[in-house]
Order: sequence, then C-alpha cells, then structure tokens
Amino acid sequence: MTSLKFKNNRLFFLDQTRLPLKEVWKECRSLAEGIRAIKRLEVRGAPLIGVFAAYCLAAHLKHLSRIKEIFLRELEKSLENLRVARPTAVNLSWALARIKRKVSKAKTKDIAFIKQLVLKEAQAIHQEDILLCRRMADYGLNLIKKGDRILTHCNTGFLAVSGEGTALAVIFAAAKKYRNNLLVYADETRPLLQGARLTAWELLKKKIPSFVICDNTAASLMQEGKIDKVFLGADRIAANGDTANKIGTYGVAIAAKYHQIPFYVVAPFSSFDLSLKTGRQIPIEQRDPDEVRKLMHKIEAAPLKAKVYNPAFDVTGHELITAIVTDKGIIRPPYRKNIRRVLGV
Amino acid sequence: MTSLKFKNNRLFFLDQTRLPLKEVWKECRSLAEGIRAIKRLEVRGAPLIGVFAAYCLAAHLKHLSRIKEIFLRELEKSLENLRVARPTAVNLSWALARIKRKVSKAKTKDIAFIKQLVLKEAQAIHQEDILLCRRMADYGLNLIKKGDRILTHCNTGFLAVSGEGTALAVIFAAAKKYRNNLLVYADETRPLLQGARLTAWELLKKKIPSFVICDNTAASLMQEGKIDKVFLGADRIAANGDTANKIGTYGVAIAAKYHQIPFYVVAPFSSFDLSLKTGRQIPIEQRDPDEVRKLMHKIEAAPLKAKVYNPAFDVTGHELITAIVTDKGIIRPPYRKNIRRVLGV
Repeated sequence: MTSLKFKNNRLFFLDQTRLPLKEVWKECRSLAEGIRAIKRLEVRGAPLIGVFAAYCLAAHLKHLSRIKEIFLRELEKSLENLRVARPTAVNLSWALARIKRKVSKAKTKDIAFIKQLVLKEAQAIHQEDILLCRRMADYGLNLIKKGDRILTHCNTGFLAVSGEGTALAVIFAAAKKYRNNLLVYADETRPLLQGARLTAWELLKKKIPSFVICDNTAASLMQEGKIDKVFLGADRIAANGDTANKIGTYGVAIAAKYHQIPFYVVAPFSSFDLSLKTGRQIPIEQRDPDEVRKLMHKIEAAPLKAKVYNPAFDVTGHELITAIVTDKGIIRPPYRKNIRRVLGV
Repeated sequence: MTSLKFKNNRLFFLDQTRLPLKEVWKECRSLAEGIRAIKRLEVRGAPLIGVFAAYCLAAHLKHLSRIKEIFLRELEKSLENLRVARPTAVNLSWALARIKRKVSKAKTKDIAFIKQLVLKEAQAIHQEDILLCRRMADYGLNLIKKGDRILTHCNTGFLAVSGEGTALAVIFAAAKKYRNNLLVYADETRPLLQGARLTAWELLKKKIPSFVICDNTAASLMQEGKIDKVFLGADRIAANGDTANKIGTYGVAIAAKYHQIPFYVVAPFSSFDLSLKTGRQIPIEQRDPDEVRKLMHKIEAAPLKAKVYNPAFDVTGHELITAIVTDKGIIRPPYRKNIRRVLGV
C-alpha cells in the first residue's frame, strides 16, 4: 500500500484530506501545486513530505530555463520555496538539502545531467524511506508482546511515509507476528483528525483490532489499566532527545509517565536534527484558526468570532520518552550520548 | 441570561445542541420530550438538568390519573424514568429525590395539593440554584488575581445551571472585578464541543478575552507557562473528593499537577454524593460511537466501521485537586474530613 506514485516523470499522490470517505488520486503538475498539497496536508507525514518534495522538484525541472546559469538559480529558488512549505518536520528540509548538496557538486555539468541527478536522488530517498520503515519495524517489534494494548496518536502508517510507516509499521509487524492478537487505541487527533480518518482507516484495512478515541480520553484509559504501551512518531528530534510531534503528544507523554506506561517514539535517522541542542529550538507551525472553528472546513463549531490558538505540534521533553526506535537501533537515555552513538554521527 | 424558563406551568428551554449557530427555544411538552432533551444534551450541565427535570415533572403531573393511588404510582414511575436519563451527574437524582421525599410525606393529601407541592419544590430548587451560583462565585473570586490566565474545560456557565454558572461564574465575577483583565483558554471539549460551542459563546457575550483550543493543546500551553490556574466543574464528587467530570478533565488534572498549576473544581453541595466512598463507585455514562465518528452528527470523520470508545466522563483523583469551591466555602485537603466539615453534614 502506498500514497505516492512516480511514473514517467509524473508525480501522483493520494489526497489525504479526502480520506476515509474517498480514495482520490491527484497529479502534482507544478511546484505550486506541490507546495499547496503540502500546506493543505493533502500530502502529510514527516517522511512522506520529504520524498514528495524531492519528486515534486524533479518533475518541476522541465519547466526551468534552458540557460544553465538561470536554471541553477531557478532550481535553488524552487528548493527554497518547497523547504518553507512546512516548518516543523525536519525531513522536508533534510531531503531537499540532500539534493542541494548533490547539485552543488555537479554545477559544471550540463542541465540534462543535473536533471537526471535530481531524479536519481529523489528515487534514492524514496527507496531508502521504504527500507528505513522495514528496519524500524524490525527493531520496534522487540518492544511489543502478544496481547499488548497500544495507544497511538496522529497517523504514522503507510500514509505518512512511502513505506509501511514509522510507529504504525511497528504495530503492523507485531499484528502480523501475533496474528492480530493485540489492540490499538487511536487518538482521533484534533483538529484535522488524522487518527480518526487515516489511522483508523489503515487499521481497518489491515483488520487489526482497534478503537478510535477522542484525544481527551487517553488518560482515562490509562487510569483504567487499559493501555500497556504508547507508540507514536516524530516530526523533529533534537540532540538531547526532545521530540516535536503532532499537537497532543506532550499531554499523552505526561499521562503515560504518571501511570508508568512506556512511551516510545519511532522515527528514521532523517527526523533527527542534531544542530538543535534542545526541543526549545524547534520551530512550531501555527495553523489557520478555522481548522478548529470549522469541523473539516465545513461545520461551524465555535463562534466564528472566537479567537483560536492552533499550534500543529508540541515538544515532548526527553525525560518523558522511554526509548526512540530508529532504523539504526533502539536509543535509550542518556539521549545526548546515545543518539550520536546509535546513529553513528 | 438563562437557558430555562417556566411560565404558566409551561417549561421552555434553549436547545443547546443548536448553539452557537442558532438560539432556538423549545417547549418541553411531555415527560418523554424532557427525557429526550436530557439524553440528547439539548439540556445539559449537571445543576441545570436537576432543575429542568424537577420542572418537567411538575408540568407533567397534569397528564396523570385523577385517581390518587394511580396518580402516586404514575408519579413515582415518572420520577424514576427521569432519574435514569443520565447516570453520572448526581444533581439529577438529587433534585428528584428531594421531590420524592416531599411527596412521600404528603401521601394523605389530595392530588391538587401534591401537584402544588411538586411545583413549589421545583421552584425552590430553581431559586436555590441561582443563589448557589452567586455564593460559589463569591468564594471562588478569592482564588483569582488580576491578569490570571485560566484554563477551563467543557461548559460551566449560565448554560449549565439556572444561575450564572459554577466554574465560569467564578470567572465571570473575576472578569467583572478586574475589568476583563484576565484571559481564558477554553478546551473545545470533544466530542460534543461544549467548550467551543457554548463556553466560547458565553465568553464572547460577556466580552471576556479568550481563546478556544483543542483539548490536546492544554498541556503544551502549560509547558509554555501560559496557564496560571485551572477552573472547571463537576458532575459528581465522592466523599473522598474524587471528582467525576466531562471526559478530558483527568488528563488536564495530570498535566496541571506535572506543571504545578493549581487545579480548582467548582460545584454546589448538590454535586456531592457522600454515599460513595471513592470515585471508583461513580457510574460513567457510555455514549453513542457516532458522536465521535460523525462530527456534529453530520460529517463522517472516522470510517463508520471503526469501533469507538466514548465515555462521557472521567474521574479525577482527589490528590490532583488543589481545592473544591462550593456554595458553603472552599474545601481543601484532607477532603474526607473537610468536605463533611464545610458542607456541615
């Protein structure tokens, strides 16, 4: 299962804002359409937007100037426009920086060569992303027992990456191993309901036993002894292990700590940003108040005059995180030391 | 401002499911309509449903038999049908038990006398409720400073009671005293959005500075040092101070404790149920999964095949509660002793 296809230099994606009602595939025909798809969360999930942006750029190059100097300037500007589409998830800027490095080493080559180079790099990022998912699932599988009741937040499955997923890939692997003898509670994840719309949809597709809950219900389930473990993703992880992830993650982490329930973050190496000492330095995207006021952009819930505070992410302090599952292994505290050791940087 | 009117033996109420879009007044013309209005949350708020049920019964008596023995049996049955409409808030059964006691002492009197008795008791409960709100506001006011940034959950204003409110009445009093120099963050309160729809509407009506937030955003605000105090209501308080309130309250309480932010419950004496030793004995209402799956009963969010766990309330342990503001004074730990002392029971 996938949410992105690249064929004959054309980029197609599943419009995630239409799920679970409709499976609508769209073509991304320009840079502007790609940026819009990222901003509107038609394409979302930290690793996926990295892969998508890389392909979007590759497909866009045919529209650039045939004069190399101008071509290179336009390429640089396209990279920058894509990079700032969403600020919090580091995978987007990571993927684009990777392409930028390749291009800067090939400046003396001709345009056709550079186009090919960008395409190859996008394909490499894509293939790597699929592989990283498998590795995270393999490592994370060791943390789940038969019958475990797992809480997750937002969406971290095959809609969030180009492979099987991050946290949800671990759950998929466990469900396979234990023949669906486990139970998943999926936070609906307000305001855009990625949990209710996307995670529930993925879990149903895989026939994994699950319940959707309102975000505010998780603590109560923990109190009742109905949650054994928390598994969720990350949009950016600082050098000390502080983790930015979908708004609500921090509250789940505090509740898990209070009930002594293990809290696991699952993310590939590309979600780490070791240039940041702590999570306080991670930029947090503020989004349109109407996401909260109008349900699914349609039904008015709060009065339209009501002010809204709508950050898309929060930062969970490393002291609340039991371990971080990566494609290179499981990282445990002390994070500042062990992140560098396990990632080998 | 009020959400309930009783005139010429006819009961009218503001349909709270239509707010904030429309202010629709409905007449409750039968016991069945009254029960339906309570179950559908057209009338909601622990103290309000007590007052409403009392009036609903009083208005219903004209439909009962003119043979006294049958009249009394029908009255008893009506009381019981109303009582079980919603299980968690104790104010409903408290108000009806109060009427039941009056009636049982007057069994030898004629039907006209008993009808009058029920009506008078309903009016007494109503007037008392208004007075209790004022007293809670007076006591609670001492806990708020100029400029305080206050988090609240669900709705506890004039829509939840027949007076000014419980927790929100305290906030209203403080806003008046400090000339609106304070800030309220209102949890939207999924799934039925009483915070976004009702609390935001009340705060706008009173011109009190406020923001609506998704429930999952509260912990992050606390982390940023943007919340000074939490004020919210209660549906039932056990003898040890454990408090049942709208789902999500418990998560807020844990986050407040983690950030050392005072957490205040505001409730009248009628919300206490001293027959229960702890909160574990409080019955928790489970509601229709479609409340979560379909936004405002209209837009499908989760797949309709998705299972949903949808408790309407949770229980916050007394150890997380800084103080309980009542109409008889502020109660602080140790609760088992001080609740009885302050309430004088």
